[in-house]
Amino acid sequence: MELYVNFELPREAEEELGRYYKIVRGGDLSNVEVAFVSRITAEELAKMPRLRFIQVVTAGLDHLPWESIPPHVVVAGNAGSNADAVAEFAMALLLAPYKRVVQYSEKMRRGDYRRDLPIPLIHGRKIAVLGLGEIGTRVAKILAAMGAEVWGFSRTPKEGPWRFTNSLEEALRGAKAAVCALPLNKYTRGMVKYEHLALMAEDAVFVNVGRAEVVDREGVLRILKERPSFIFASDVWWGRSDFAKDAEFYALPNVYATPWVAGGYGNEEVWMQMVREAVRNLITYARGGVPRNIARREDYI
Amino acid sequence: MELYVNFELPREAEEELGRYYKIVRGGDLSNVEVAFVSRITAEELAKMPRLRFIQVVTAGLDHLPWESIPPHVVVAGNAGSNADAVAEFAMALLLAPYKRVVQYSEKMRRGDYRRDLPIPLIHGRKIAVLGLGEIGTRVAKILAAMGAEVWGFSRTPKEGPWRFTNSLEEALRGAKAAVCALPLNKYTRGMVKYEHLALMAEDAVFVNVGRAEVVDREGVLRILKERPSFIFASDVWWGRSDFAKDAEFYALPNVYATPWVAGGYGNEEVWMQMVREAVRNLITYARGGVPRNIARREDYI
Repeated sequence: MELYVNFELPREAEEELGRYYKIVRGGDLSNVEVAFVSRITAEELAKMPRLRFIQVVTAGLDHLPWESIPPHVVVAGNAGSNADAVAEFAMALLLAPYKRVVQYSEKMRRGDYRRDLPIPLIHGRKIAVLGLGEIGTRVAKILAAMGAEVWGFSRTPKEGPWRFTNSLEEALRGAKAAVCALPLNKYTRGMVKYEHLALMAEDAVFVNVGRAEVVDREGVLRILKERPSFIFASDVWWGRSDFAKDAEFYALPNVYATPWVAGGYGNEEVWMQMVREAVRNLITYARGGVPRNIARREDYI
Repeated sequence: MELYVNFELPREAEEELGRYYKIVRGGDLSNVEVAFVSRITAEELAKMPRLRFIQVVTAGLDHLPWESIPPHVVVAGNAGSNADAVAEFAMALLLAPYKRVVQYSEKMRRGDYRRDLPIPLIHGRKIAVLGLGEIGTRVAKILAAMGAEVWGFSRTPKEGPWRFTNSLEEALRGAKAAVCALPLNKYTRGMVKYEHLALMAEDAVFVNVGRAEVVDREGVLRILKERPSFIFASDVWWGRSDFAKDAEFYALPNVYATPWVAGGYGNEEVWMQMVREAVRNLITYARGGVPRNIARREDYI
């Protein structure tokens, strides 16, 4: 069975896949039945008439050209493969500003030793987790271990150490912080607007480790300018990897920005882990098994 | 029964204590049987010949003039009253540098968008927790919820989600991070030396939320200068509240410093909580009960 791969693979992955597939990287793709990709274009897809399974190495699937993927082609994502790393990063993005570590550390460097920034508690405080997938679930469990009153928001009810709600308003109203780990799909695009952010506590911290486009760009800008004590801490940006496009945010004193490094882009080891899990799924498919993380096409089209 | 108080009390605390004690703040202290203090001097103690119980509002008791406290006087501390706040702060001091949030955020502000700082994982990594009291136990549980391989160090064995050791070397060898929440007493003073820090991973993060004097000042300075990737993140300093004395640390790029704000000094609400718990202990004593957190004199003398 021919497998199309369009990104660099570690040698072990190449060898392992070689036992089940004939790997092709270009030229004639007319016999390709399976594709292993990070991203894929409509042009590439057009060359693979026999394609029936696409394994994506990333957790998110929002960047695929869904309109060009025929309905009979099964698409598998890689949710969970980087979830530990991203959940840890979300906690760091939350705690660094929330506990005023960055601000106090900068003050100390300047020789300003005044204790004039009150430090809010996590314990007993309402904290919203938006999205209860692999990442959100982990974040919620860590926050619960810290004694927070966790509110879990997602479309479909899910049990865990949180109060469940499918109302974004209910999740955010009065919350001292929120961690957004929603996938980007047709339901979530632009979902978090100014009105929602404005429901949060005056000095709330909003963390995004999902996709920037879930949150309305102008809404964030507006609340950041209206409320100097509101903090936006995000790893993901509307310009994707073209970070210069969102530079106006990084310049604001109430923004903590990182360049999309929470998962595989920030750590070679996490990337390797993501590849390993995707390879496992490809082998399951080659053996006639049912792959994990099969995407619901209707979430994107 | 006369109660000597030498710091400002919230009105509710004053009223509640007034039901059980006659509060005195100066003048003739010869009938004082109980003292409620934040700190106390040998001079004050000399004026209270009938003293038999001291309730301290802070968790640490290292600052008391132990040589001047007669052996028959019972001393109670306030461990646990600020433990949630301090444990949360310890996690923030650990994660902000460990996950490179501060460094990346500064880079983004400067317009440097390169992803050139690998971000280590917490999950599956050896992390040491020094001291398994109210704070250390909480930190260990949060780290366990993050999937870390937690090593718990204390003098006496204690069960929890950690591998216990009473060997500091074993706790720190190869550890990617350590959180120190040891009390300062005659056993722990100067306990963590250069040789111990040198056992940790090259790019380890050492967090201190206990007392500065547990760690050897010159040892920390030496490892910070020898290993640019070693990070020291501390809320406590050898000069106590005279932060200027340790300014040479705050200037180092691999130091994250905060001005002793993890607990009651950083948050009015936490301070009130500490006072409330101490008041509860004083009422227990007035009613003839056994107060909590009774100090072991032999730990200090």
